[in-house]
Amino acid sequence: MRPKAFPILVDGKWRPARASETFRAVNPATGEFLPEEYPASPWADIAEALAAGARAALEMTAIGPEPVARFLEIFPKLVEGRKGELVSAAHLETALPTEPRLGSVEFPRLLDQLHQAAAACRDRSWCRATIDTKLNIRSMFGPLGGPVAVMGPNNFPFAYNALGGGDFASALAAGNPVLAKSHPGHPSTTRIMAEAALEALRAAGLPSAAVQLLYHFAPEDGLRLVSHSSVAATAFTGSRPSGLALKEAADRAGKPNYKEKSSANPVFILPGALEERASDVASELFQSCSLAVGQMCTKPGLVILLQDKAGEAFVERVKALFEGSAPGVLLGPKVLDGLREGCRRLTGSGAELVTGGRDASGPGFRFLPTLFRLPGELFLDNPAGFQLESFGTLSLIVLARDMSEMAAIASRLEGHLTGAIYSHSGGRDEPGYGIIAPVLRVKAGRLLNDKMPTGVAVSPAMNHGGPYPATGHPGFTAVGFPAAMLRFAGLRCYDRVRPHRLPPELRDENPTGSMWRLIDGEWTQKSL
Amino acid sequence: MRPKAFPILVDGKWRPARASETFRAVNPATGEFLPEEYPASPWADIAEALAAGARAALEMTAIGPEPVARFLEIFPKLVEGRKGELVSAAHLETALPTEPRLGSVEFPRLLDQLHQAAAACRDRSWCRATIDTKLNIRSMFGPLGGPVAVMGPNNFPFAYNALGGGDFASALAAGNPVLAKSHPGHPSTTRIMAEAALEALRAAGLPSAAVQLLYHFAPEDGLRLVSHSSVAATAFTGSRPSGLALKEAADRAGKPNYKEKSSANPVFILPGALEERASDVASELFQSCSLAVGQMCTKPGLVILLQDKAGEAFVERVKALFEGSAPGVLLGPKVLDGLREGCRRLTGSGAELVTGGRDASGPGFRFLPTLFRLPGELFLDNPAGFQLESFGTLSLIVLARDMSEMAAIASRLEGHLTGAIYSHSGGRDEPGYGIIAPVLRVKAGRLLNDKMPTGVAVSPAMNHGGPYPATGHPGFTAVGFPAAMLRFAGLRCYDRVRPHRLPPELRDENPTGSMWRLIDGEWTQKSL
Repeated sequence: MRPKAFPILVDGKWRPARASETFRAVNPATGEFLPEEYPASPWADIAEALAAGARAALEMTAIGPEPVARFLEIFPKLVEGRKGELVSAAHLETALPTEPRLGSVEFPRLLDQLHQAAAACRDRSWCRATIDTKLNIRSMFGPLGGPVAVMGPNNFPFAYNALGGGDFASALAAGNPVLAKSHPGHPSTTRIMAEAALEALRAAGLPSAAVQLLYHFAPEDGLRLVSHSSVAATAFTGSRPSGLALKEAADRAGKPNYKEKSSANPVFILPGALEERASDVASELFQSCSLAVGQMCTKPGLVILLQDKAGEAFVERVKALFEGSAPGVLLGPKVLDGLREGCRRLTGSGAELVTGGRDASGPGFRFLPTLFRLPGELFLDNPAGFQLESFGTLSLIVLARDMSEMAAIASRLEGHLTGAIYSHSGGRDEPGYGIIAPVLRVKAGRLLNDKMPTGVAVSPAMNHGGPYPATGHPGFTAVGFPAAMLRFAGLRCYDRVRPHRLPPELRDENPTGSMWRLIDGEWTQKSL
Repeated sequence: MRPKAFPILVDGKWRPARASETFRAVNPATGEFLPEEYPASPWADIAEALAAGARAALEMTAIGPEPVARFLEIFPKLVEGRKGELVSAAHLETALPTEPRLGSVEFPRLLDQLHQAAAACRDRSWCRATIDTKLNIRSMFGPLGGPVAVMGPNNFPFAYNALGGGDFASALAAGNPVLAKSHPGHPSTTRIMAEAALEALRAAGLPSAAVQLLYHFAPEDGLRLVSHSSVAATAFTGSRPSGLALKEAADRAGKPNYKEKSSANPVFILPGALEERASDVASELFQSCSLAVGQMCTKPGLVILLQDKAGEAFVERVKALFEGSAPGVLLGPKVLDGLREGCRRLTGSGAELVTGGRDASGPGFRFLPTLFRLPGELFLDNPAGFQLESFGTLSLIVLARDMSEMAAIASRLEGHLTGAIYSHSGGRDEPGYGIIAPVLRVKAGRLLNDKMPTGVAVSPAMNHGGPYPATGHPGFTAVGFPAAMLRFAGLRCYDRVRPHRLPPELRDENPTGSMWRLIDGEWTQKSL
């Protein structure tokens, strides 16, 4: 490694990576490399971090949730103190606008998530303590007993950052050490977060390896990591091919792994909604498709409506909106490649380009807002081919011959994060809703009415998850506390374990005076 | 198929399988084939059942939990009416004693499980309805939208029967149709259960394909089934090789699958316990090892204690108990083969045979109660090799040099269903407990004190599950309501869905007046 490359964070120390390979992030607005050099770690770095993480896991179980809650309170304070630096770094690395996106939307969300995680950790109700007093059997969810590997995506340098984002916060709040791998698109943002995290670790009294950071490693080492005996679980948000490769390796080793791998987020627009408010719906669709230049996991990439006069008029409206907007800067060259490839694939499969479909002028990575259309029968000939995600402002409108073809399309959907239905505000679309909704319901983690899917609130009732291939398991959400923490926990039953040996959450006395426990079938905050 | 073979149950009708291959179960007490002939189904039967199951899944979601709850109440009544027949059939097919085991232990448990499932289904709290009133986001667990394939084990013809046992009851109570595959060791028992189920289906008003039964199919068709696009999930209880093959196929297709695949159920006996009550502990160990001729998923197959005078005396005590007991009849030839193979493997790896190790005389399938011993250092040389399950009365005592070697053994354990620690009733073993328990805790689904692991109570606080390879996910239990139902459910979020379109569980009014819902962070039985 050339000496100027930044060090990695292993076992509480910033130290050089054991390798000579380095990389630099690209400024997407210019297409030029940024000056900071970061190391690509060899397996030796990963192995060392895993071993330290395994020790930290035992320590964290012994010291309980209090120091983790303290960390999750101190860390956002320290992060807030470095807001200027973080917003600048993230802007340079992602080209996302400083305002409002980075400074006033994503940054506050980052802080809010961490505070919610701290509250859930301190509250302890997340562990679902369950006590059968008659049989003296008690159970709760508890940490997995090893480090959780977190690999973040490119599109949310704060809110989904591998070091500091939602997966990080939920794995840690559940009592697990985190071994973070920065997305290589925003290493400086992640480094600043990690500097704050190390300071917070020390202040909170957590083990030194409770949070560790590597910047990059070879794909084969990623497969080795997620299937290693010392790793407890993995969280990954990113592309479908990478996600599937990691899933296969982890599954084969029996390691829990949570992958958010892509979603087309189908939106069904019923005829009554078009009749009533086509202009509003078109505008909402355009806003949602172009939010963050279409680089949202919940971007509506597939829109289904009837092929009639109103449907044709709607396509024209959306086309005009797409053409009337300036193409934004994409996160990087891979997103641009993905859009070019998506257009080739859609055209090759028989979809008709309505507008866009090529690079836009200007420095850096830009692509014209792109709209395709397709007859329903062609969708039904090749359903899997038309519901692949293309990151960026690209959407496909499928025009169905009638409601029965629309229902057939719904029934051929794969698993997606979301599914939305727009309908007439009165009763006109109730029969159509009754046909589409039950089918769509089991294909999507979140069902929306009259609302586009972008914007994932951090709520206990949120499900940012969904059936395969959107994620790997339909029962878990990546967003929302405390539910997201359950991904990183094991069910621990205590059968006739002596009272003083039980974890505080399962003793007769309620340890906080207010945590919710399920005692003999009743949820209660009382002590036994 | 020869006309005398029994028909299969597909879409509410008993009809011949579309194949000519048949099989007969063996009476383990004699080693002779039983007269009843059952069909091995080709893929066409499975495909037909899957298609019918997919239709039933949609219907079941539409009609809600009430008919399922009725089924789960009527079915045990009908089963109870056929108790004599069922106990006779199960006794012939498994050689398990009619009394007390089949008639007075397992049969009542079967009925109790079904009643608990009915109560959980009717109560609805299992779905964990979560409402965020401020954002109007609401979520709950709901059925998966397709049939669940259930493949039962050989050792519990009632309580784990693919048609009627715990997996069946929990998949159905969560609102999913079940496609059951009988264990080929007890087809007549399963057939009688299915006859009762069909009658109960009709009485309860469930769709005709809510419960279907096949008896047997080729292993490759099993792989095709668990990964088929129409199947929602799979539950399998059985051997590790079959379980791993099914898991790999299902994982690759992104299909949730729950496998209970084997467990050695380590028991640590600390020195104070031996000093205080060696005779009691030896007797409990022997009882637990020989219960049901050792054919229990929670049989203690691995016992760890110190290699001192008390340890040696303990081995002698256990040896005497093993030698003083008559070998029972095993469930079938595969169990006998497995014991022979287990003895070869243990001897080959350096374990020393203490007693048994060979076939016992008598008709049918019998093996001498078998005990091995092994120095701790040899265990540490090959930890994976010494924690494989051998079904039957076979256990391995590992003698550790000191507490530190005992701790090293604990740290090299794989995932098991249970882990037990025996210790002095006073404080003498507290330091040792403090070393072993935290390590063992994350290796086992259920941690016991001073109690052998056999006997899995059907309690809401039970965890009959555990880390890989015991099962495929550490967060789920196969026993206990309502938790076991969550394996067969997806998290369904409703974002701004109009009130009248919400499922009753998520509307403002509490649909039962008593179901527990998490509203704005408070568990409550009230309406909004």
